[in-house]
Amino acid sequence: MEPPALDLALDAPALTAQLVDIPSVSGTEGPLADAVESALRALPHLRVDRYGNNVVARTETGRAERVLLAGHIDTVPIAGNVPSRLDEDGLLWGCGTTDMKAGVAVQLRIAATVPEPNRDLTFVFYDNEEVESERNGLRHLAAVHPDWLAADFAVLLEPSTGEVEGGCQGTLRVRLRLPGVRAHSARSWMGANAIHAAAPVLARLAAYEPRRPVIDGLEYHEGLNAVGIEGGVAGNVIPDACVVTVNYRYAPDRGEEQAIAHVREVFADCGPLEIEVTDHAPGALPGLSHPAARAFMAAVGGQARPKFGWTDVSRFSALGIPAVNYGPGEASLAHRRDERVETALITRCEERLRAWLGAA
Amino acid sequence: MEPPALDLALDAPALTAQLVDIPSVSGTEGPLADAVESALRALPHLRVDRYGNNVVARTETGRAERVLLAGHIDTVPIAGNVPSRLDEDGLLWGCGTTDMKAGVAVQLRIAATVPEPNRDLTFVFYDNEEVESERNGLRHLAAVHPDWLAADFAVLLEPSTGEVEGGCQGTLRVRLRLPGVRAHSARSWMGANAIHAAAPVLARLAAYEPRRPVIDGLEYHEGLNAVGIEGGVAGNVIPDACVVTVNYRYAPDRGEEQAIAHVREVFADCGPLEIEVTDHAPGALPGLSHPAARAFMAAVGGQARPKFGWTDVSRFSALGIPAVNYGPGEASLAHRRDERVETALITRCEERLRAWLGAA
Repeated sequence: MEPPALDLALDAPALTAQLVDIPSVSGTEGPLADAVESALRALPHLRVDRYGNNVVARTETGRAERVLLAGHIDTVPIAGNVPSRLDEDGLLWGCGTTDMKAGVAVQLRIAATVPEPNRDLTFVFYDNEEVESERNGLRHLAAVHPDWLAADFAVLLEPSTGEVEGGCQGTLRVRLRLPGVRAHSARSWMGANAIHAAAPVLARLAAYEPRRPVIDGLEYHEGLNAVGIEGGVAGNVIPDACVVTVNYRYAPDRGEEQAIAHVREVFADCGPLEIEVTDHAPGALPGLSHPAARAFMAAVGGQARPKFGWTDVSRFSALGIPAVNYGPGEASLAHRRDERVETALITRCEERLRAWLGAA
Repeated sequence: MEPPALDLALDAPALTAQLVDIPSVSGTEGPLADAVESALRALPHLRVDRYGNNVVARTETGRAERVLLAGHIDTVPIAGNVPSRLDEDGLLWGCGTTDMKAGVAVQLRIAATVPEPNRDLTFVFYDNEEVESERNGLRHLAAVHPDWLAADFAVLLEPSTGEVEGGCQGTLRVRLRLPGVRAHSARSWMGANAIHAAAPVLARLAAYEPRRPVIDGLEYHEGLNAVGIEGGVAGNVIPDACVVTVNYRYAPDRGEEQAIAHVREVFADCGPLEIEVTDHAPGALPGLSHPAARAFMAAVGGQARPKFGWTDVSRFSALGIPAVNYGPGEASLAHRRDERVETALITRCEERLRAWLGAA
């Protein structure tokens, strides 16, 4: 079978549809990475490198400043929403439309149509953003090929509805394990039901009031949620274990230790349970006062907003590269069965970036 | 390889060990059914029939009364507790020792050692008792070969610590499905968390006070328990579904409809949820006032007790055959990693049944 191919001569909305129609759920990005690499290698003004399913392309024109445009190519699991569908209102529907193949399409269009940029450009396409931080492709690039990521300023094309979003919230994932004692369910009083023991944990989560702190003038919005629960041995057995996986999204005025301490405190009086941290990625402060961020803001216009979701701006932050989120998707539509993107926003985002980077 | 064989000349405890050492988790009873059938066919005073992995043997001596001795040959999943182990205190350890290969051993010993019983005897060995009612071998026999089960009185050798247990509790299994709306966990307020929606369900279960009604002088003890819970889409997604599987064990003064109505009532104000009945087996009233039951009680002695667990006495009840539980195992040790049986109880049970059925 012919490997799927991308046509960079298409406009960005049509290219987004092509990208959506090559499924790339985290861990299965190979075919899409191949297509991206192959399309970029056809452009003579770019140097292209690949590591795993991560593809990096660069202009090397000797400009004084280098800007990096980054996007992840993976998606959450498909929920009956591939292939993509364009409706009569100009909405493109499908898994990954908003998060973030629309942004990837804009990256590819800039790569193809701005051969002589006013700043040197680096395009980063990476895998496994939607899963545990340990698998994140940008993390691996930062560890193995940090030179590929060198830049003065980074724009991450994560969905931000075409507005600039500063900073991002951190994310902490923990497993809460409730204990129990097995018994036959006909004599339940001989055992201790671990699923019932999760009742106060779920009650605490359901009643939780998240913080909404204001940082650098931006109001963040935290969240503490069960994202998984599992318990049960057999239909006639009182279960001796129940595990609740909890995701804490926290504002960037907190660090990892404070986040863990907060979670422990929330569940402190929910009975005996074990807490295990399984995944963590720190937030990033807005950093909008940085000169490069100011210049970018002036060029694309609009008012900066806070970023609720964790994004890899945090990783650029840690590398010392000021970074913002600026992408055509709408973050609140991400990870939904009815995920979609306004094609007009894709076009606008592409035009503004081209105007900024292509201006003489 | 030689198929496993049973030696009916062994005493009942040693025969129990042989039975335990032929694994027969529900759905894999073939080798044990073969061994039982083969051992019984060697006894010239019995007529032997087989249907699937169910084996039925009968004396046909023309007595006025027929007694049926029944036992299931399957076990719950093995938990590192096979082969069996006899300790210095006369305890036989292993999966199925108490539930109910000790009872099956007693059946086989009576079959082998009472060639001229004072009542005609039917021995029933059946499969799939530990799983959904639809797979139960006794149910299939009742549907396909009801004549094989014809009897005036039935003794089910389910674990009852060598005491007579009357009736049994019913069992109802339902799935409670909590609704939700998916969203990215960084913007949890855009979705509705189905796992959090299970909080009132688990709180209700944890606080549930079971009934303990007295019926025919026997005190029953109900139970309402979560035996499974499942929810979650991905580590960064607010889940749109959570399913709690609940097992209601109810006293035999209630029927199926009352049991379902009770479960609906318990969860009536726990928010929107769907209730689906997945499995049901009715209870059986003690029936100890029946003449055949009285005669049996007089012969084996002791004081009748209520049966908490569901057993197939309910199925005999429905066929119009008075039935009791009377077996050497201890029910509270069933389905446990440390399942075991007192060998002295096996011997006593065998002796009492032989005295009753073999007396001139």
